[in-house]
Amino acid sequence: MNTSKPTQTPTPQTLHFESRISVEQVEEGYDLAPKFDRDGLITCVTTDAATGEVLMVGYMNPEALERTILSGEAHYWSRSRQVLWHKGASSGLVQKVIEIRIDDDQDAVWLRVSLSAGIHSAPASCHVGYRSCFYRTVALQSGKIGYAETEKTFDPKLVYGDAPNPTLL
Amino acid sequence: MNTSKPTQTPTPQTLHFESRISVEQVEEGYDLAPKFDRDGLITCVTTDAATGEVLMVGYMNPEALERTILSGEAHYWSRSRQVLWHKGASSGLVQKVIEIRIDDDQDAVWLRVSLSAGIHSAPASCHVGYRSCFYRTVALQSGKIGYAETEKTFDPKLVYGDAPNPTLL
Repeated sequence: MNTSKPTQTPTPQTLHFESRISVEQVEEGYDLAPKFDRDGLITCVTTDAATGEVLMVGYMNPEALERTILSGEAHYWSRSRQVLWHKGASSGLVQKVIEIRIDDDQDAVWLRVSLSAGIHSAPASCHVGYRSCFYRTVALQSGKIGYAETEKTFDPKLVYGDAPNPTLL
Repeated sequence: MNTSKPTQTPTPQTLHFESRISVEQVEEGYDLAPKFDRDGLITCVTTDAATGEVLMVGYMNPEALERTILSGEAHYWSRSRQVLWHKGASSGLVQKVIEIRIDDDQDAVWLRVSLSAGIHSAPASCHVGYRSCFYRTVALQSGKIGYAETEKTFDPKLVYGDAPNPTLL
């Protein structure tokens, strides 16, 4: 007779997303009924909760949205690597979620986050080394590019090593 | 002999978007080389320049981006109506662009705007009647929906009349 206690497997906590039935339900109701596009993704805007600065635009599949809500840390779907992406898992630059908002037709999410520092970096979000991915301006009328952030926050080589650059041409 | 002066047609002002040649050019250069997706669109986040609040996520085709840069007023591509959309043309709720930013891989644009009041409305942005399209919260852990804006800013029936609702199920 085996008297050892059975190993307890923690029940995976999951969320239920509702079906989209009517415009009124989606826009004015209390159902979480996100619309994923034909690639199975929803657009996510992430801002710094302290400054209001837009840090990045990312994309989430249902699992990334669910893990973000359940864990309180931002998860995305990496379109370039085609994997679930726990932001900061390799760099340490985790995004702690302060608030989640969803828009009228529930096809976009807004995360207000607090940035963590990494081992080799002050708090930042962009793989190029800037705080925000939106480090450049586009001038009205001329369309000329300028720099809103004039100095990088960290050295990407120190933080990411030889990992492939996610930018696609 | 015709001595009348030739009619002067104003030269249409246009912008040139550069081809995308290399990651370095796109991420660290001064070329405006936006990446439009397979539908010919680029994602646009629009925030209130005064408060930092995210007002909406929209999409732009090359013409909408060009008109936004040249005119200083936000233009989008309406995916539900499939037309170029000068925000506020019908409602009066024009978005005056204070600053345009572009992200690292140039596949997303951030507009910082100043909101105008309409004839029937205080300054607002959302077709449902709220200031921001992100008027609802999603609670961490439970995923429960709550309201960040508890009152509408305007009555959509007064502003939009019988125009079809743009939300798609």
